[in-house]
Amino acid sequence: MPPSLSDAAGVFAALWRPRIDEALASSVARVPEGQLREACAHGLLGPGKRLRPLLVLASCEALGGKGADALPAAVAVEEVHAFSLIHDDLPCLDDDDERRGRPTVHVLYGEATALLAGDALLALALGTLADAGAAWSPRAVARLAEATWSGLVPGQVLDLEARLPDARADLEEIHLLKTGRLMEAACVLGGLVAGGEGSSLESLALYGRDLGLAFQLADDLIDAEMPGEDPTSWLWVHGREATLAAGEAAVARAVAMAETLGSQVLSDMAHAAFHRRV
Amino acid sequence: MPPSLSDAAGVFAALWRPRIDEALASSVARVPEGQLREACAHGLLGPGKRLRPLLVLASCEALGGKGADALPAAVAVEEVHAFSLIHDDLPCLDDDDERRGRPTVHVLYGEATALLAGDALLALALGTLADAGAAWSPRAVARLAEATWSGLVPGQVLDLEARLPDARADLEEIHLLKTGRLMEAACVLGGLVAGGEGSSLESLALYGRDLGLAFQLADDLIDAEMPGEDPTSWLWVHGREATLAAGEAAVARAVAMAETLGSQVLSDMAHAAFHRRV
Repeated sequence: MPPSLSDAAGVFAALWRPRIDEALASSVARVPEGQLREACAHGLLGPGKRLRPLLVLASCEALGGKGADALPAAVAVEEVHAFSLIHDDLPCLDDDDERRGRPTVHVLYGEATALLAGDALLALALGTLADAGAAWSPRAVARLAEATWSGLVPGQVLDLEARLPDARADLEEIHLLKTGRLMEAACVLGGLVAGGEGSSLESLALYGRDLGLAFQLADDLIDAEMPGEDPTSWLWVHGREATLAAGEAAVARAVAMAETLGSQVLSDMAHAAFHRRV
Repeated sequence: MPPSLSDAAGVFAALWRPRIDEALASSVARVPEGQLREACAHGLLGPGKRLRPLLVLASCEALGGKGADALPAAVAVEEVHAFSLIHDDLPCLDDDDERRGRPTVHVLYGEATALLAGDALLALALGTLADAGAAWSPRAVARLAEATWSGLVPGQVLDLEARLPDARADLEEIHLLKTGRLMEAACVLGGLVAGGEGSSLESLALYGRDLGLAFQLADDLIDAEMPGEDPTSWLWVHGREATLAAGEAAVARAVAMAETLGSQVLSDMAHAAFHRRV
């Protein structure tokens, strides 16, 4: 569906997605040729909304930077996202055979290569960011790495523990760690590229966290079409009405923050993350 | 065995190992509490020679830097080493139940947690290095990341492929990637901390590569006590005499390079890497 011109996020996404895809393809081409590169490319370059890289670029522009300067950071964030999906899909974690209508990396290339492809993408993401040679580089690496070791990874551990008998899952904590922290890092990285400091970075972080929560709640609502007992689903735990209300509240907070920052694109993206129009 | 005073590397190791272990413990304490941190700590803090961190410190001092300044880099290199061991030991790769006389991480904590602990250690390593806030930080991150995505990881892929029927393994390439590239990065990182440039960094890289080869050949010779068909063992492919000769030649090249750099410690370390248990 072509973007409506009244939808700033849709126009922004249509403009940037081809450049993001090009930058992702040229980054993965640095991985040594063969099975490993193919597995990385399958995990990184498939169909996807590119929500996280778009957040990086939009956050950079929100603070007055140039989107193009933030492309290396956008690539790195998407590579970290792809690494985490490849590892989460492995048999010892979620054991998923399909993602976005395609076979997962380990189904096509075997478990060992999938494990190694995830490792390569994580290292490539952080290394490329360090290589960017800009003043913001070290802080961006540290922030993206921290979103991984103190966000994505412990979030996945909590998610596993929540599935054990007698577990009392802190769902908000799981969602914050597994989804929110990388969205937050995406926004902060964009802000760092624009030379942002202090309170503007903090506003972007809060925006990203709420957008991440809204995004995850929308996922739970969509998954509900295939209902079943799932202690890590907000919908299953709190019911449909409470999930909708929590999602709307998170969107409202994110929109308010985007307005403070004066960014129509970020405001539209927050709506779209929950109502999925992007 | 206490170090002999005539052995500069032994004295150096005895001096620095406690400080390295302390720095490793304080780094892993940043991982969120629980199973994840315990799994990371088990993989990182067990008994070990700490050869790679010692190489970082000795290389830094060889170029006139202070060893203490290189501790963050030493920690990062050991964390990358630990990440690679945890993942290599997983059932889908080498399926090893024991390492250095202790159960491997996945045996104690399960496959999922071991996978995630490896991920956390890789992200922690690169993030901590970026956080060091020194002028050498970005180059050090980029170099260590590259040793991972274009060294350790593709080396492990080649190693897997070498075990397939009809494979023609390029053993030297496998050893260089799996072992040499991280040793090389360790030495270069030490040099970067000391403010080294150009030819002195290149000398450290060549030294590290040869030391890595010698170290790996010694491993092959030691493993020969449990003989068996192994297309990735120099010993099995080329025989004992040729393996000894190749190891001695690599040590000689590394020692010559250490002498050019004027470092008795690096010279002794090259000897020790090959003759340790042979």
